[in-house]
Amino acid sequence: MSKSRLMYLPLGGAGEIGMNCYVYGYGPEDAERLIVVDLGVTFPDMDSTPGVDLILPDVAWLEARKSQIDGIFITHAHEDHVGAVGHLFERLGAPIYARAFTANIARRKMAEHGFSEKSVTTVAPWPETVTAGPFKVGFVPISHSIPESSGLVIDSKGGRIVHTGDFKIDTNPGVGEAFDHDLWKSLAKDGVKALVCDSTNVFSMAEGRSESTVGPEIEKFLGTAKGMVAATTFASNIARVRSIAQAADRAGRSVCLLGRSMRRMIEAATETGLLDDFPSVISPEDVANIPRENVLLLVTGSQGERRAASAQLANGKYMGITMKEGDTFLFSSKTIPGNERGVIRIMNQFSEMGVDVVDDSGGLYHVSGHANRPDLDTMRELINPQALIPMHGEHRHLREHVKIAEAAGVQGVLAVNGMMIDLSGNKPKVAEYIETGRTYLDGTVKVGQFDGVIRDRIRMALNGHVTVTLILDENDDPLGEPWCEVMGLPEQGRSNAPLVDVLEADLDQFLGRAEDRTLADDDKLEKELRTIARRTTMAEIGKKTEVTVVISRLS
Amino acid sequence: MSKSRLMYLPLGGAGEIGMNCYVYGYGPEDAERLIVVDLGVTFPDMDSTPGVDLILPDVAWLEARKSQIDGIFITHAHEDHVGAVGHLFERLGAPIYARAFTANIARRKMAEHGFSEKSVTTVAPWPETVTAGPFKVGFVPISHSIPESSGLVIDSKGGRIVHTGDFKIDTNPGVGEAFDHDLWKSLAKDGVKALVCDSTNVFSMAEGRSESTVGPEIEKFLGTAKGMVAATTFASNIARVRSIAQAADRAGRSVCLLGRSMRRMIEAATETGLLDDFPSVISPEDVANIPRENVLLLVTGSQGERRAASAQLANGKYMGITMKEGDTFLFSSKTIPGNERGVIRIMNQFSEMGVDVVDDSGGLYHVSGHANRPDLDTMRELINPQALIPMHGEHRHLREHVKIAEAAGVQGVLAVNGMMIDLSGNKPKVAEYIETGRTYLDGTVKVGQFDGVIRDRIRMALNGHVTVTLILDENDDPLGEPWCEVMGLPEQGRSNAPLVDVLEADLDQFLGRAEDRTLADDDKLEKELRTIARRTTMAEIGKKTEVTVVISRLS
Repeated sequence: MSKSRLMYLPLGGAGEIGMNCYVYGYGPEDAERLIVVDLGVTFPDMDSTPGVDLILPDVAWLEARKSQIDGIFITHAHEDHVGAVGHLFERLGAPIYARAFTANIARRKMAEHGFSEKSVTTVAPWPETVTAGPFKVGFVPISHSIPESSGLVIDSKGGRIVHTGDFKIDTNPGVGEAFDHDLWKSLAKDGVKALVCDSTNVFSMAEGRSESTVGPEIEKFLGTAKGMVAATTFASNIARVRSIAQAADRAGRSVCLLGRSMRRMIEAATETGLLDDFPSVISPEDVANIPRENVLLLVTGSQGERRAASAQLANGKYMGITMKEGDTFLFSSKTIPGNERGVIRIMNQFSEMGVDVVDDSGGLYHVSGHANRPDLDTMRELINPQALIPMHGEHRHLREHVKIAEAAGVQGVLAVNGMMIDLSGNKPKVAEYIETGRTYLDGTVKVGQFDGVIRDRIRMALNGHVTVTLILDENDDPLGEPWCEVMGLPEQGRSNAPLVDVLEADLDQFLGRAEDRTLADDDKLEKELRTIARRTTMAEIGKKTEVTVVISRLS
Repeated sequence: MSKSRLMYLPLGGAGEIGMNCYVYGYGPEDAERLIVVDLGVTFPDMDSTPGVDLILPDVAWLEARKSQIDGIFITHAHEDHVGAVGHLFERLGAPIYARAFTANIARRKMAEHGFSEKSVTTVAPWPETVTAGPFKVGFVPISHSIPESSGLVIDSKGGRIVHTGDFKIDTNPGVGEAFDHDLWKSLAKDGVKALVCDSTNVFSMAEGRSESTVGPEIEKFLGTAKGMVAATTFASNIARVRSIAQAADRAGRSVCLLGRSMRRMIEAATETGLLDDFPSVISPEDVANIPRENVLLLVTGSQGERRAASAQLANGKYMGITMKEGDTFLFSSKTIPGNERGVIRIMNQFSEMGVDVVDDSGGLYHVSGHANRPDLDTMRELINPQALIPMHGEHRHLREHVKIAEAAGVQGVLAVNGMMIDLSGNKPKVAEYIETGRTYLDGTVKVGQFDGVIRDRIRMALNGHVTVTLILDENDDPLGEPWCEVMGLPEQGRSNAPLVDVLEADLDQFLGRAEDRTLADDDKLEKELRTIARRTTMAEIGKKTEVTVVISRLS
C-alpha cells in the first residue's frame, strides 16, 4: 500500500469570487478519504450566462469518488458557501456539518429539495471537533458579515491545516463572536502545515473598519431624515440589519421587513438565539396606517436584483407600498463589481420619483466583511504557517496574496480551481490537474458549462435567428419555395424589400440550379441552405445569423 | 404671425451619460429655426442591446423639421458628442461646425460614410462666431480630457445661452487651452439667460485635479518598472497620451502605438498642430528587436473592449507582441460603470500571464475630465445665469445639480430628453413633450428601440428557441408527426427522454384530437401548437421557450 498523502483541491472559489468549494484529502494516492469545505453558488449574468438561474460548481470529480467523502463542512451561511447544498447533496451523499445558524439556513435549503433535516448536523464551536474519516475538524469562531462564521482547523496525520473561510478581524462585530487573537494564536502552537486564507480584499490597503462603527452613522442619518426611509443591505448581515432596526426604533420609526430573504434571515437568527433584541416589526399592510416619518422599510435587493424589493419599490410599488417625493432610500451596502448597471437603474428610478438616494460613497454606511491587507498580515502572523495558500479570490487576488506572503518569508502556493496540491512534503507541489468547471441550473435542468446550450443562446442574442423550411417530394424536387421565418432581425435591409422575401428568393434560386445529388442529401442540402441564408443576411443586414434548417421529404 | 420664442430640447444626454444631442430653437412657435449641439453615440451592452453595434439618438423629430435646421455644432471630438455625425448627417442635412481638431475627427467620420469633407466647417475660437439663422454661435475654449473642447455661446434675440459642453476647470491641461476664468466671466457681463451645464460629476465633492499632476506620477512609475510596460488610456486624451509617451522617452523607452484609434487620434492632433513634441514611435514589428525594458506600448481598450489592443494582449498576442512575466500593464484610466466585468477579465488574464497590473485605485494615474461639484459651483458663479439647466447626466445627476443651483439661489430646470423648454419668459417652462428614444445600428441596419427586434433576441437568450414544423395534406390532415428543432435548450429534462421527442409526442397527441376547424385555421393551429410547446418545455425543463411555428399545406 502506498504512502499516505495530504492534499488540497479547490473546485470553486480559487480564481473567482463566489462558488466556494474546496476539497481536502488524506490517504493513499488516489484513494484518499475526502472532506468538502463549502458548497457555494455564484450568480449568472446576461453577458456570459443568459437565462441561467444559478451557477454551481462542477462536482463530477467528487461524485466519481462519492464513497470516499466523509463529510461536508460549511463555514458560514452566505450563498457562495452554502447555496449549493440542496442542489448537490444527492450527488455527494455525505453528512453536512455546520454551526447552529449556518445549519439552520442549510436545513431550509435541504427541505426545499425534499431532503431530511437530519442530513445537517449542528456542531459546537472549537475546541469541539468532528471526526470525519482520518480528519478531525473544528469550527473556530471568526468575525465576518454574517453570524457564526467559522474558520476550520483540519487535523490529520498529515498535519494541521487552518482554513480561514471568509473573515475580517473585528473585535466588536455587533452580532456574533468577536475576533479572538489569543484563540487564533493558540491554534498555531504545535505548528501549522498550511494556512488556506481568504483573499478577496488583498488589494485594500487600509485597516478594516469594525461593524460597530456603522450603527452610529445610520443613527445620525436617521436623525435628520424626513418622510419614509427605506434601507437595503444584505439580509444575511444580521448585525447590520439589527443596527438599522435599532436606530430606527430610537428614531421613532417602526420597522417593516420587505423581501423573502430579509424575513428568513431574521427568523433564522432569532431561532438560533442570536437575535433577542430585534425591535418588533410591522406588516406591509400596517405601513399605510402610520405617518411616513415613522416608518423604516428594511428591504432586500442591495445589488439591484430585478425581482427584489428594492427594484420593485423603484418600479413604483411593492406590497402596496409606494415611495414618493421627500422619502429617502439608503444603500447600506457596496455594489459588487458587475452589478453597477442594476444599482444605477434603481437610483435613477428613485430620482425620477423625487426620492433622495444615499449610498456609501462617503464611506459611512457600510463596511466590508473581508480582511484587508493589514488583517491578512495579522492572520498570517498569528498562524505562522509553513505555507500560505490563498483561496477565495480572482487570479489577481491569489497572486498578490502569494506575493505578500513570500515577501514576508512565508512560502506561498498559487492554486486555482482544479490544481490538486500535495501538502505532504516540506514543499507543497502540484500533484495533478483536475478538470473543473461550472454547472448551470437552467430552469429545472442542470446544464454543463461546455454543453453548447448557453453558447447557442448567446449566438441567437447577438445574431438573431432564421428558420428555413423546405419540403421535397418523392423525386427530391422542391415542393414550392423554401419558407423563411426570422426572429430578432430587422424586417428589411439593403434591398428595401422584406428580409424574408430576399432570403426566400435567394434560397429558391439556389434550389433551381442545385444538382440532384445535393437535393437527395439532407446533410449537404442543409449545409448549403444555411450558408446561403447566412450570406444573404450578411449582404442585407450586415449580420451572419443563426439558422435552423428543416427539410421535410414526402415519401 | 405669432411671437418668437427661444427653446431648448435635449434629444440625448439628458437623463443618461453619453449620446449627447441638444436642440436650440428661435422663432415663431413650431416654426423655429433650429440648431443642433452635438450628435453623439452611446454603446450597447449585452443586458439590454445584445448584438447591437452602436446606439444613436432618435432624430425623427429633427428630420421632420430638416428645412428648419441651420447648423450642427460639435463641442468636442469624444464619441458621445461627435460619433453619430456620419450616421445621421443625411437625415439632417445641415452644415457641421467645429474647431480644427474636432473638425478633423468629424471629417474622418464623414469620409467613412462617403460624404464630402466640405460638409464640416472649421471655426476659429471665440470671439469669432458663426451665424446660423437667428443664432450667432461662438466656440469658447474650455478644458476637458480632449483638445479644443469648447463651450458654446449661443446668442439670439431671445438672449444669451451658455452651453458648457463637457468640461473641467484645469488651468494647466498639458495639451490645449487652459481654463480662462476671466474669459468665462466676460461672457456674463450683459447677462445670461441660461447656463446649460455638464453634470456627470456632480456627486464628486473634491476639487478637480489638473491633468498636469498625472505626468509626474507616470514618470515616477516608469522609473521603477522593469520589463516591458504597456499603458492604456482613452486615445482621445491627447494630453495623457503625450505625458505617457514623454515619460517613456525620458525613461529610455521607445513608444509603440497599438490600436487604430490611438494612431488616428495622434495623427489628428499632429495634423492640427496640437502635438509637435510627441516622441518618435516604433512599429509593432520593431518591438521584437529592442530589449523589453526599453519598450512602452501605448494601447487602446482601457474599458475592456473585447476587440481592442488591451484585450488582445491579455488574450496572448497582438500584432506579434506577447507580454510575459515581469512585464507591467498600466491602466491610466478609470472604469466607466458597467464596464467592470471586461476590465476585470483583462486584469486576471494578465495575472495568469505573470504580468503585474497597476490601476488608478491609488488615485495617481488618472484624473477625470469632468467638473466636480466645486468646479460646477465656480462655473455657475462665473456665468451667474438666470437659470441653470443641467445636461449630460443621468436623472440623479441632473436632479442633484438642480438642487445645488437652487440652494445657491439660481433657478434650476430639470429637463430630460424630450422635454422642450421655453426659455422666453422670466421663468423657463415645459412647452411640450417630444417622443424621443434611441436608434440602434444593428449590423448595417438602423433599428428602432421599440421595434421588438432586440426584445426578441433577449427573449431567445433567456428562454431558448423551438422550431415546430407541421405539414398538412389537402384534407387538412397532418402528414406525419410535427417536427421540432431546438436551439439554446438542454437536450433532455424531467422525462429523461430527448426534449424534442417529448415535444413531438405532446404536439402529435394534440393533433390527434384536434377539431377539423382548428386544423383548417393556420392562426388558430399555430397558436395552439405554440401554447403546447411552451407548456411542454415548462414541464420538462422549467422554461417557457420562444417558439416559431411553420405550417405548410400541400395543395
